[in-house]
Amino acid sequence: MRLGFDVGGTKTDAVVTDGAGRIVARTRRPTAWGPQGVVDTVLGLVDELAEVPGVAASPFTSIGIGMPGQVAPGTSIVTHAVNLGVDELDLGAAVGARLGMPVAAENDVKAAALGAHALSRQSRGGDARSTVAYLNLGTGVAAGLVCRGRLWRGAHGTAGEVGHISVAPDGPLCKCGQRGCIEAFCGGAAIAERWGRPGALPVRDVFDAADAGDPDAVALRGGLAYGVAAAVRVIVLSGDVDAVVIGGGITALGGRMIGPVVAELEASAAASPFLRSLRLPERVELLPPGSPAAALGASILGASNAEEIITHG
Amino acid sequence: MRLGFDVGGTKTDAVVTDGAGRIVARTRRPTAWGPQGVVDTVLGLVDELAEVPGVAASPFTSIGIGMPGQVAPGTSIVTHAVNLGVDELDLGAAVGARLGMPVAAENDVKAAALGAHALSRQSRGGDARSTVAYLNLGTGVAAGLVCRGRLWRGAHGTAGEVGHISVAPDGPLCKCGQRGCIEAFCGGAAIAERWGRPGALPVRDVFDAADAGDPDAVALRGGLAYGVAAAVRVIVLSGDVDAVVIGGGITALGGRMIGPVVAELEASAAASPFLRSLRLPERVELLPPGSPAAALGASILGASNAEEIITHG
Repeated sequence: MRLGFDVGGTKTDAVVTDGAGRIVARTRRPTAWGPQGVVDTVLGLVDELAEVPGVAASPFTSIGIGMPGQVAPGTSIVTHAVNLGVDELDLGAAVGARLGMPVAAENDVKAAALGAHALSRQSRGGDARSTVAYLNLGTGVAAGLVCRGRLWRGAHGTAGEVGHISVAPDGPLCKCGQRGCIEAFCGGAAIAERWGRPGALPVRDVFDAADAGDPDAVALRGGLAYGVAAAVRVIVLSGDVDAVVIGGGITALGGRMIGPVVAELEASAAASPFLRSLRLPERVELLPPGSPAAALGASILGASNAEEIITHG
Repeated sequence: MRLGFDVGGTKTDAVVTDGAGRIVARTRRPTAWGPQGVVDTVLGLVDELAEVPGVAASPFTSIGIGMPGQVAPGTSIVTHAVNLGVDELDLGAAVGARLGMPVAAENDVKAAALGAHALSRQSRGGDARSTVAYLNLGTGVAAGLVCRGRLWRGAHGTAGEVGHISVAPDGPLCKCGQRGCIEAFCGGAAIAERWGRPGALPVRDVFDAADAGDPDAVALRGGLAYGVAAAVRVIVLSGDVDAVVIGGGITALGGRMIGPVVAELEASAAASPFLRSLRLPERVELLPPGSPAAALGASILGASNAEEIITHG
C-alpha cells in the first residue's frame, strides 16, 4: 500500500493506493500551522489511514507528499511554503525517519500534474506514455508537465512557471514587477486585488457582478478568460501536450469559468488557421472538483522513489 | 562511424562522428531541389565522406538526417519541407534502403537542439543530463528542447513552436493570423516584409539603417530584441532550461543582434525581482556561426535509433 498526501493551505488530502495505482482509501483534515503542524497533520493522517478496514492488513511501502513551495531536485526539503508558515522543512528527516521509509517530496502543482495524467489516462483509456499538462488556477497560476508519463522538473525544479510569462506589454501590473503576466490576468489574488471589494469568494463575486452587468467585473472576467487562454496556448505551443487539465480553486466555478476560456480560444482560432489546426478547445479538460490529483500524484512519486532507492541503492 | 546530415534550403552539411560523439570529418555541398534532389545530395555526400582518410577504414553504422518540415514521431517521413520543394519524402525508404541501414529523420531545429546540447556539454564541461533549449532565428522562429539529455518531441512532434505564441495583443499581424506573435517580431521573413525594401540581407540592412538613425529600422530592431527576449522568457519559465542556445541565420549579426536582446532581458529584470532571480542574460548563449549543431544532433539521433532497433527488435 502506498501513501500520498496533498498538504494545502487549509486542508490536507491523503490517499492510499494499491499496487495498480488505484485509490483504496481517502481522507482529509485541516492543516495545522508551521513545520511541526504540517508534520503532525501528515502523521495523524497516517495513523488514521492505518485503521481503515482493508488497508490495515497490508503495510505501507512508500510515501509521497505534495506541498506548496519549492523542492530542490533530488531532496525532500521544501522551502518557501508561505501559506503554511513553512520557511524550510526537511520532510525526509521529519516524516520519513518516523515512518521508517524514504519520503518523496514535490511541489503540489507538479504532483497534481502527475495525478491528473494518471486520472486522464484512467478516464480516457489513454496510454501511459501520453503527454499532459496540469494548469493550476489558484491564488497564483502555475503548471506542471508530464511528458510520456514522466514529470518535467527542469534544471532547478521550476519548470511550468507560466504564470509570470507576460502576454501583454501594457497589461495589468503583476506583483512580480512585470506587466501583463498571465497570473496578473487570471490569478485569484490578482483578481481579488483589482476587484478591491470585500467578500470571501472574490472571483465568484466578480462573475456574479459581471452577470449583473457591472463593467469592472465584465472586464475582469474577460481578462481571466484571456489569461487562461494565453496559458493554454503557451503550454500547447511550447510543450505540444495531448491535453491541458485545468484545476485549482477558481475551477469551482465550472462551466461559468471554462465557457469564456473556450470562447476566447475559439475566437483566436477563427483568426488563425495555424491555431485552428491545434484544436485547442478539444485539448482543454477541467479536473473534477474535489479530485485527489495531487495526493494521487504524490503517491506515484513516492512509489517510484522507493523503487529507485531499492533498485539503485 | 556515424553519419549526420543537416539538409538546408541552400546547402547540406554532413558530419562523421566516432563512437564518443566527436566529429572526425565534415563536408557540405549545395542542396539539390525536390525529393530526388535531397536524396541525391545526401547519397553524394555519403560517397564523398567514405573516401576521407581515416573514415574509409571503418564502416558507417548509423545515419541521421535533420531537415526542415515535420517528421511524424516514430517514422522517417518528412512532410511540408517547402523550402526544399519537398511535400513528402520517406527518407527511410529512399536513403536507408540504398545504404542498408535505418534512417533517423528529425526536424532540423530539433536535431540542432540535440547537437547544441552536446556542444554545450563539451564546451562547458556540463553533464549529459543537463536541460538545454535551442532557439532558431531564421526565416521563421522555433525552438527545440532537450531535457536531461533527451529530445522533447511532444505529443505530435511539434513541441517548441514558440514562434506563434502571441506576446502583444496589439502587436504586428503574423502570417499565421494572430497578432503579436514572437515570429512576427523576430522572424527573418516578417522583418523583411515589414522593412519592404530590396536587398539580399534585409535584417542586416535593418540593423545598418538603425545604426544610421532610420526610425523604421530602429523600431524593427527594437521589436526583434523584444521578440527574442520574450522567447527566452517563455522557454525558461515554461521549461526551466539551464541554457537557451540561439542560432539560425539572423545570429550571423553576432553581438549586434544579441546585445539589444540582453539589454531587453536586463531591462525586464530591473523591473522584476522574480525575473532577476532567473538570471536570464547568463542563460543565453550564441551558437558559433557555422557550427554543425544540426548535423551533429542528427548523428546522435541516428546512433540511438540504430541502438534501439538492435536492442528491441
